[in-house]
Amino acid sequence: MNFSSKLLENAVEEFGRLPGVGKKTALRLVLHLLKQQDAEVTRFTQSLNLLKEKIQYCKECYNISDDEVCEICLSVKRDKSTICVVEDTRDVMAIENTNQYQGVYHVLGGLISPMDGVGPSDLKIEGLLQRLRAGDVKEVILALSATMEGDTTIFYLYRKLKEFNVQVSTIARGIAFGGELEYVDEITLGRSILTRVPYERNVG
Amino acid sequence: MNFSSKLLENAVEEFGRLPGVGKKTALRLVLHLLKQQDAEVTRFTQSLNLLKEKIQYCKECYNISDDEVCEICLSVKRDKSTICVVEDTRDVMAIENTNQYQGVYHVLGGLISPMDGVGPSDLKIEGLLQRLRAGDVKEVILALSATMEGDTTIFYLYRKLKEFNVQVSTIARGIAFGGELEYVDEITLGRSILTRVPYERNVG
Repeated sequence: MNFSSKLLENAVEEFGRLPGVGKKTALRLVLHLLKQQDAEVTRFTQSLNLLKEKIQYCKECYNISDDEVCEICLSVKRDKSTICVVEDTRDVMAIENTNQYQGVYHVLGGLISPMDGVGPSDLKIEGLLQRLRAGDVKEVILALSATMEGDTTIFYLYRKLKEFNVQVSTIARGIAFGGELEYVDEITLGRSILTRVPYERNVG
Repeated sequence: MNFSSKLLENAVEEFGRLPGVGKKTALRLVLHLLKQQDAEVTRFTQSLNLLKEKIQYCKECYNISDDEVCEICLSVKRDKSTICVVEDTRDVMAIENTNQYQGVYHVLGGLISPMDGVGPSDLKIEGLLQRLRAGDVKEVILALSATMEGDTTIFYLYRKLKEFNVQVSTIARGIAFGGELEYVDEITLGRSILTRVPYERNVG
């Protein structure tokens, strides 16, 4: 691209580094911001600087938090004996949105992925084991993606958690609500038959 | 969405204001930036602040520029007697990329659009007329989008430009190179027959 301005080119290059943002989209976003009031652009950049500067990770569950301990870990309404292990903060948000879970979380900060150079020591696994050592935990739910990285991480965690006196469970895999049988892949369908659930439990 | 952090929520909200960026995409982008080094995020926000602070518009053609007069208007290689009128800086970049144009530009900064409350006085039309009054301009090419707003602006400009002794032309409209006839819309196809060009000119 032939930029008439080095400043414009720099800004477009920075936006183009964002995941899923190509050069043309970057240019569109930058020109949009350029048309806005000064105050709006300042607010945009400040929100990002503030976030980067002040953000903390809950020292209990490692979720993104504005304070030392996050709201969920602080809440007396949450059941501290159940820990749901997730990959990142987006998963916490997704599960919170279901309004089906009353326990607490543990955010790993990633999944084991040798291809990407992510090993167990890069994740907050030691923090999880410490919480178990502190006692009072009855169940650990592994709510990780149904991918190779997710399964690898589940396998690793399961072996680590065996030495503790806790129930380890994984979230159910099967056909989605509204999913039509003929379009479900074979592995999911096969597993959903093997892990079938008594009718009374599914409607309960 | 249930954000665990107000700082995170603010940043996601700011990103979500960008055109074509929804809440989920905004969250993905913000979490990506949060994973980057501090220096990279600083570079990102600074590029934007610098752009907004220091950007200038060429006082000749109103294109985005780092200086008072842009490189194209300064260049002695460019033919100052031909002015190509475009909507915004992206169009300048697109035409420059073709390497087919040796004249100079005039950036209107938008198109006449009563629906959006954009009238002729919101565009840099007076600046264009001043350039014509200064003389030495032989041709004005109206390279505007083939939309209702583009056509309205062309009609308005054509009437204004009639009083000057200049050739006014519009860029050719027709089927695109590689375009298959059966998929071309009727209006374009009809016009491309009416404005047919001698074979010698098209291959020249």
